[in-house]
Amino acid sequence: MNAIQKHLGPAELTRLLQAEFPQSFAAEGAMMIEEAVPMRARVRLPFHDRHLRPGGTIAGPAMFGLADCALYIAVLATIGWVPMAVTTNLTINFMSKPQPGDIVGDCRLLKLGKKLAVGEVYIHSAGRDDAVAHAVGTYSIPPR
Amino acid sequence: MNAIQKHLGPAELTRLLQAEFPQSFAAEGAMMIEEAVPMRARVRLPFHDRHLRPGGTIAGPAMFGLADCALYIAVLATIGWVPMAVTTNLTINFMSKPQPGDIVGDCRLLKLGKKLAVGEVYIHSAGRDDAVAHAVGTYSIPPR
Amino acid sequence: MNAIQKHLGPAELTRLLQAEFPQSFAAEGAMMIEEAVPMRARVRLPFHDRHLRPGGTIAGPAMFGLADCALYIAVLATIGWVPMAVTTNLTINFMSKPQPGDIVGDCRLLKLGKKLAVGEVYIHSAGRDDAVAHAVGTYSIPPR
Amino acid sequence: MNAIQKHLGPAELTRLLQAEFPQSFAAEGAMMIEEAVPMRARVRLPFHDRHLRPGGTIAGPAMFGLADCALYIAVLATIGWVPMAVTTNLTINFMSKPQPGDIVGDCRLLKLGKKLAVGEVYIHSAGRDDAVAHAVGTYSIPPR
Repeated sequence: MNAIQKHLGPAELTRLLQAEFPQSFAAEGAMMIEEAVPMRARVRLPFHDRHLRPGGTIAGPAMFGLADCALYIAVLATIGWVPMAVTTNLTINFMSKPQPGDIVGDCRLLKLGKKLAVGEVYIHSAGRDDAVAHAVGTYSIPPR
Repeated sequence: MNAIQKHLGPAELTRLLQAEFPQSFAAEGAMMIEEAVPMRARVRLPFHDRHLRPGGTIAGPAMFGLADCALYIAVLATIGWVPMAVTTNLTINFMSKPQPGDIVGDCRLLKLGKKLAVGEVYIHSAGRDDAVAHAVGTYSIPPR
Repeated sequence: MNAIQKHLGPAELTRLLQAEFPQSFAAEGAMMIEEAVPMRARVRLPFHDRHLRPGGTIAGPAMFGLADCALYIAVLATIGWVPMAVTTNLTINFMSKPQPGDIVGDCRLLKLGKKLAVGEVYIHSAGRDDAVAHAVGTYSIPPR
Repeated sequence: MNAIQKHLGPAELTRLLQAEFPQSFAAEGAMMIEEAVPMRARVRLPFHDRHLRPGGTIAGPAMFGLADCALYIAVLATIGWVPMAVTTNLTINFMSKPQPGDIVGDCRLLKLGKKLAVGEVYIHSAGRDDAVAHAVGTYSIPPR
């Protein structure tokens, strides 16, 4: 069996990502992979001081980072461990201010080609349905 | 009752838009409003020579126009007749080539504020589920 | 010498594109390539009924088409004749209404890699400096 | 004189922003305003552990944060102190990996209306010309 093509679930991805990106996945306030199946991922950003702006709202860069990460996880969950996949572009719309609390990014891939993956991410406050932000982005997949 | 706040359905919108934008809504190959309810719209672009590129595929500007129109219809369906609402920005991702045939744009508004509306549009070939393109855009709503 | 890598100027590009895309480059109101050098292109869209919206302003899809075309020309001018290069995404911001008259798209490539080209386009009314719209987009370049 | 309309320079903006957003402007590794004049701003992100990814490259969210901040500074420099201006959307293209070192965001506003400001930001490694990333975004300006 080809390791590259093996689908990766939340536990295995978390283990690999904690080793590769300890600051994002193994530090206090680190993102947590809640779901990772082919073409989909859900990632949670815990409420933590370092993600906040004055007023208790989540900072834009933290939401950007969550969207970008959810896309990355969805790609890895689908095609296997290609840590060198890189974001080529991302468009984010901010619709409203999140509650002070965890935020969750739900990603769905719209396209998975040989060279490019395109996906969208809805970001919402944990336990609420309405999206506070929406992102759509492209990953470039290295040749295998 | 305030005419401005009245929801507008497909028949009434079509009549108003044919008068205002005859080239887009009353000409051969013109767009057709299939659904228009608060926060949602579905618009169809009939297969027609003037929307094509060599190879029989739908031209990018025709898909852009469909996405932009579906957003506009969703805004009008929700807040009533504000023809001066204008697109401030739109991001479109092209995922695959549409079939030679009609294409359909399904729009959902993600936000409807006093000044700005944000929505996304999935474009697919009529009768098929997978999106050939995805757009997300913002309309500026004039003061009323 | 490798034909693929040969830089193409306005006259040669116009001839090739008129044969490949007659509707865009050989019809009434067709776009005109004013400049095409490595990493840059300038394309003009003549004022013509079919590009207009009520009020005499240029339609959004016509501006989208001009931006997309200017990117395409800048790519071809740099890497040679690869007509199968396709737009993967494009973000356009509309800043103000153009004058009734020709509009011009000035494109500069920000990146030209093996697989992807990224560029931006300023659209302005002919003879005026201030941009009425700005686009940034990505082309996927087929393997050669 | 109307304080709201007063142009703000780097020193005055830095003082105001350090009080309002200490985490972004008064902490270790905080951003520094190098230039702030009407319609333009230049902001520097010092090389610091908390902005890095493995391999020594600057993290995407740090570049997003720099672009977003440069837009904000350009808006404040032009219209005065309106700290409640908020990002409505931002599109970022990543062209290449920055050098390990400071990065700089050069912002130019493309539009400054009553309700919306649109601008673009080139991000490059300090002392180098070629952009490693490019962003274009919109700020919503609260009524004054």
